[in-house]
Amino acid sequence: MTTIIDGKAIAASVREKAASAVADIKSRHGVQPALAVVLVGEDPASQVYVRNKHVATEKSGMRSIEHKLPENTSEDDVVALVRKLNDDDEVDGILVQLPLPKHISSDRVINEIHPDKDVDGLTEVNAGRLILGKEGLVPCTPQGSVILAKTVTENLSGLNAVVVGRSILVGKPLAMLLLAENCTVTMAHSRTKDLAAVCREADILCAAVGIPRLIKGDWVKKGAIVIDVGINRIEESGKMRLVGDVDYDAAAEVAGAITPVPGGVGPMTIACLLRNTVLAAARRRGLGKVEV
Amino acid sequence: MTTIIDGKAIAASVREKAASAVADIKSRHGVQPALAVVLVGEDPASQVYVRNKHVATEKSGMRSIEHKLPENTSEDDVVALVRKLNDDDEVDGILVQLPLPKHISSDRVINEIHPDKDVDGLTEVNAGRLILGKEGLVPCTPQGSVILAKTVTENLSGLNAVVVGRSILVGKPLAMLLLAENCTVTMAHSRTKDLAAVCREADILCAAVGIPRLIKGDWVKKGAIVIDVGINRIEESGKMRLVGDVDYDAAAEVAGAITPVPGGVGPMTIACLLRNTVLAAARRRGLGKVEV
Repeated sequence: MTTIIDGKAIAASVREKAASAVADIKSRHGVQPALAVVLVGEDPASQVYVRNKHVATEKSGMRSIEHKLPENTSEDDVVALVRKLNDDDEVDGILVQLPLPKHISSDRVINEIHPDKDVDGLTEVNAGRLILGKEGLVPCTPQGSVILAKTVTENLSGLNAVVVGRSILVGKPLAMLLLAENCTVTMAHSRTKDLAAVCREADILCAAVGIPRLIKGDWVKKGAIVIDVGINRIEESGKMRLVGDVDYDAAAEVAGAITPVPGGVGPMTIACLLRNTVLAAARRRGLGKVEV
Repeated sequence: MTTIIDGKAIAASVREKAASAVADIKSRHGVQPALAVVLVGEDPASQVYVRNKHVATEKSGMRSIEHKLPENTSEDDVVALVRKLNDDDEVDGILVQLPLPKHISSDRVINEIHPDKDVDGLTEVNAGRLILGKEGLVPCTPQGSVILAKTVTENLSGLNAVVVGRSILVGKPLAMLLLAENCTVTMAHSRTKDLAAVCREADILCAAVGIPRLIKGDWVKKGAIVIDVGINRIEESGKMRLVGDVDYDAAAEVAGAITPVPGGVGPMTIACLLRNTVLAAARRRGLGKVEV
């Protein structure tokens, strides 16, 4: 029997844990963790994301602070806002919604965020802490992917993990996280020769390439854990639908466990953002270990 | 015929390139790149390393600045010196010789080094730049390992690389560098199941574990490039000798190319330090691209 990894339910439990940690922090320390989100411009998709994050943050019991700036805001003004948020002792997490308008360097803005408030884990310092194995803030999607895999088998040590895709947002940090779980990790990508054969060696197969159904059913080892990070919008039989990077129906027949798309990795992203914000608050405010 | 990769000769040519870049910078811009080395205490091995770096730096035409501090120097005083060197416009590279005395946090001291002067590539920011694929300063030993591999085949794209060992100084950065060369990269380590089988898949096999002759001859694929980063001091037939992490004699019969120990990766480290210092000088001083 193949386990369908229920990302929605697991994300809900991550959110609940975050909420109860927030409640605990409030009652024991009398402080309310706060997430500040910066949105520049009117991109419709970004507005939806920011709205969803806002709702989730408030639902968790944290304070959500929104800064909506007009499209024509200068880079220096965005940087000035980030610095103000860095200095604001009541702000625990800072998230700058991407993409920024073209006249603003996201690279400069992101790296202005104080690493200890960088709840998206996008700064150079947090990327460095990840590879150096130090405590930091880890990007949400790869973090969520590992949490999902661990619901199948708590101990991933010694398993062969193959990560297909080497983006800085998912593939590379995911490889580092799986390495930290003591997996033997292979990073595969568009230049990989015989990708099918590489995938067939995987006990944990993670796809994060953005190519609809690239991974075929016969690329999956029997019993493998398949984590599909892809979310691709395709037209099929005249209607739009979302599919992953894995040919789900075929892979599900072989895999031991598999994430569906939608409802797999997707819901984990905001859940892990809340988790990161709680972690950031606890560390920054010196509140000791929190259970999240 | 197995190619013995001559690390000494290749390191010499890297040094020569650095020296001619220095000469060029001097003649075209009238500046002399400078490397500052900080040594705290009297550790005999460290004194030898610092001495070797000093000689190599001067030989390349760069200025070598040595700061020798007594063993009982406070952490704050070391940090103050690093900050002074950060602010010194004549200093292009800063190297703090490790290990530091026990009462000093190397982590704090290292991360005080300005990333653009961090010629050892040890700061969180440079580790982050490496995983993010951004221009930065790359640790010397993994950098040297890739240069050696590329003397055998300039284009490593699509090759299967296996890195055995996941240290922050060698294994992990080396995996990232090979990924940037478009290799399919597997990170293997002590928890890897059937390490022999994993190694046998490698077109480029890199060993960086510090276990004498861990990698046997029959773990090596015919024709593979073998890069042995290990330098282990063992006693054999009553005398001390240096051996790598690879069983050299057996592996050399199978490999297409192999680095000896000593005389393989070892000499590359200082050569790459000089290279990094030239790169740091050119970038920081805005001198444009240099050939190194």
